Amino acid sequence: MNKKILAFLKKSRKKQLTELCQILKIPSISSSSLHWKSIKDCAEAVQKSFIQIGLKKSIIFKTSGHPIVYAESMQDPQRPTLLFYGHYDVQPVDPLSLWKNDPFEPTVRKGEIYARGAVDDKGQFFIHLKSVEAYLSTHSSLPVNVKFLIEGEEEIGSPHLENFIQRNQGLLSCNTVVISDTAMFKKGLPTLCYGLRGLIYFQIDIEGPRSDLHSGIFGGAVPNPAETLVRLLASLKNSKGRITIPDFYRNVKTLTPIEKKEFRRLPFQNKQFERETGIHKTVGEQGYSTLERLWARPTLEINGLSSGFTGEGSKTVLPAKAMAKVSMRLVPDQDYQKIGKLFEKHLKKLCPDTVKIKIMNLHGGNPWITDLNHHALAAAAQALEQGFGKKPVFVREGGSIPVVAIFERIMNLPVVLMGFGAPDEQAHAPNEKLNLQHFYNGILSSAYFLEKMILSQTETSRY
Amino acid sequence: MNKKILAFLKKSRKKQLTELCQILKIPSISSSSLHWKSIKDCAEAVQKSFIQIGLKKSIIFKTSGHPIVYAESMQDPQRPTLLFYGHYDVQPVDPLSLWKNDPFEPTVRKGEIYARGAVDDKGQFFIHLKSVEAYLSTHSSLPVNVKFLIEGEEEIGSPHLENFIQRNQGLLSCNTVVISDTAMFKKGLPTLCYGLRGLIYFQIDIEGPRSDLHSGIFGGAVPNPAETLVRLLASLKNSKGRITIPDFYRNVKTLTPIEKKEFRRLPFQNKQFERETGIHKTVGEQGYSTLERLWARPTLEINGLSSGFTGEGSKTVLPAKAMAKVSMRLVPDQDYQKIGKLFEKHLKKLCPDTVKIKIMNLHGGNPWITDLNHHALAAAAQALEQGFGKKPVFVREGGSIPVVAIFERIMNLPVVLMGFGAPDEQAHAPNEKLNLQHFYNGILSSAYFLEKMILSQTETSRY
Repeated sequence: MNKKILAFLKKSRKKQLTELCQILKIPSISSSSLHWKSIKDCAEAVQKSFIQIGLKKSIIFKTSGHPIVYAESMQDPQRPTLLFYGHYDVQPVDPLSLWKNDPFEPTVRKGEIYARGAVDDKGQFFIHLKSVEAYLSTHSSLPVNVKFLIEGEEEIGSPHLENFIQRNQGLLSCNTVVISDTAMFKKGLPTLCYGLRGLIYFQIDIEGPRSDLHSGIFGGAVPNPAETLVRLLASLKNSKGRITIPDFYRNVKTLTPIEKKEFRRLPFQNKQFERETGIHKTVGEQGYSTLERLWARPTLEINGLSSGFTGEGSKTVLPAKAMAKVSMRLVPDQDYQKIGKLFEKHLKKLCPDTVKIKIMNLHGGNPWITDLNHHALAAAAQALEQGFGKKPVFVREGGSIPVVAIFERIMNLPVVLMGFGAPDEQAHAPNEKLNLQHFYNGILSSAYFLEKMILSQTETSRY
Repeated sequence: MNKKILAFLKKSRKKQLTELCQILKIPSISSSSLHWKSIKDCAEAVQKSFIQIGLKKSIIFKTSGHPIVYAESMQDPQRPTLLFYGHYDVQPVDPLSLWKNDPFEPTVRKGEIYARGAVDDKGQFFIHLKSVEAYLSTHSSLPVNVKFLIEGEEEIGSPHLENFIQRNQGLLSCNTVVISDTAMFKKGLPTLCYGLRGLIYFQIDIEGPRSDLHSGIFGGAVPNPAETLVRLLASLKNSKGRITIPDFYRNVKTLTPIEKKEFRRLPFQNKQFERETGIHKTVGEQGYSTLERLWARPTLEINGLSSGFTGEGSKTVLPAKAMAKVSMRLVPDQDYQKIGKLFEKHLKKLCPDTVKIKIMNLHGGNPWITDLNHHALAAAAQALEQGFGKKPVFVREGGSIPVVAIFERIMNLPVVLMGFGAPDEQAHAPNEKLNLQHFYNGILSSAYFLEKMILSQTETSRY
């Protein structure tokens, strides 16, 4: 690569970090109505960043929810176009007491920057912004055309993104979508992700008596909604860790022998996983390894429980209500809408008529998988090898990035998932962080990627 | 009964009510430090009442909490002695806006007196005070010796009473304890309660991973403490509503045919119970009626649940912790300490070693039952029949009155629970009330009781 770019990247490090901190300071929590002003401020700050690095065209699109920031550099229509997708919204921060620094006062400790959004996803989309800046600051043009699509509702399920993409296919047309919103398999080990799980998320409300009752006077004869809830939830998995919803596994693809072999080759230690998560031992569906359980098998988790008296001490109450948040992770070729219907039907059938049940579908998205031989993946692999000095590994992830499936379904676009997080990144948890070496090597890899893409392709192949 | 007494009671009605109102006006809320002065005032007012009716000995005992008022008339040591227990403290009054009159400005509407403490318990212990007054105003002596123990901390769990009784067994020695702090089964239907359930209350904490984790990235391989909790809780009852803890039912006394028959005879409607609690239908242990389930069968209730994300919307979190409050209502001859140990042992055995479990015993007390053939109960039944003009019913209650078990355990004393409340009395709620017919018939019944006791016994039999 051109020495001017390398020199520019080297001397810009401090400035790159300072500018990232400006964005990280904005509490753009998308799920809370208290933060709508911050969401707007953050969208404007992101647009300002695009203008500062020299992108001629940038737009803030209003939606019925939070705004979408778009920017582009389309200097040569003959060249391939990359679309970088990211999101400027972040998860809530509670419990705040577990944070070592204010989640919106970015703080560097031991080569990591700690802040809500550091890795998910402000720090990651910023990497590509900075590689484009390096080109535009040292050259008259970019090796490829670039577009940026940075939304503000990823953490609440991107409710307006699909409609936006649907209506703006011309504006968003490109050859490959690049998303950096995942983690590397191991610190310092560049990683390409070729598969993601889908999601369907529910809230279940059970109602028993009209109001909380005295558990002595009424206990034993009045249906306790908390009891119904725990019975329903407990019945959803059997003793082998299999989900008991009829037809749940019908469309689950089995792993290929090559994938199984690749999984086994990864530097993964069950003991280390246990140590890192602070658990005594791993659990899960019988007959599968931990990575298979995390990446290639569907699962069902209780995300939240609430009922009755939860304060200090005791209160002899028979609660009027009980609530659970429950979500299922899905794998190819499960369809989140079909699974959602199976779930609702199953629960309603199981629920006794002594209580009322309300099942709310909060959000969902399909699983996704791409061809391991796609040329854009090859270009990304080469770029990462040069940026990090190591051959990348190919992995799947257990989480969901609904937008990946949307791009595939609506625009038939290949997606490269080039993540720069780390296994201990604490996304969605207190003390979220981004490794600074990943940040800087990420910018370098992104710069190589811009070059590799012009060499590797002229047209999009179906994958 | 002596006509002088009947005439005295008849002419004193207005004065009895006025004097009750003096006590009801004092806001003796025991849980609030703002009301300590009122508590003291109330204790003094109660002592004054004892002096006024002619009791020669009365003492206010200081405790580390609120004072205990004691008074007695021990004219003839050869005669049996009754100890009346009651409490002059009351529940808080919020929400104040729901009261139709100031809770401390007693108001009569449609034959009911409305005030905080009207039924729980000022109005009820006052009943016995007024029957003693009737005797002492018309005769030189009482048919039996009487003692009054009126405490000021019942609504906060009587923290100093047990110690007081322990230290003052000589002073408190008697043949029978009488407590009027319960409700009649139906308005106008005199009621004797001969059994109460016991209680053992736990908090269960389950710990999984060190911190909340992303349910996509970790779901399927990390033990979810909420899942373990619901599995444990769901397993505690079988499909027939039976508690599955080994040996749990070992000491449960079965209902006698007489009791079963008495329960069936009570004016109880399942439909009305369902309407009043706002439930679709009653539930419970197979093979038992609703009253049997509420009064004579042990039960286990979930009083509270909490884990993970419980706010609005969705958060894809795999929680680090899950908590439940669980209590068991116990019946004769279950022992709350033994049941507590069985519960802990069972849960610890069931809990998989993939998570940590912590079980905290928050409080407990033994069930209580008295022999239906006890002479004091027989005397009370006759007295109530004469006071109300109706044969009393014999009931149990599902809740606990810890002091009952204390008197039995420490002093080996029989207790007569002669309640004058009503099912709609609103104790602990806004618009607490006492039916005036219950009040006056109660005083009459109490006067008859004093006579019946001398006829019915000369010594205490073990029950």
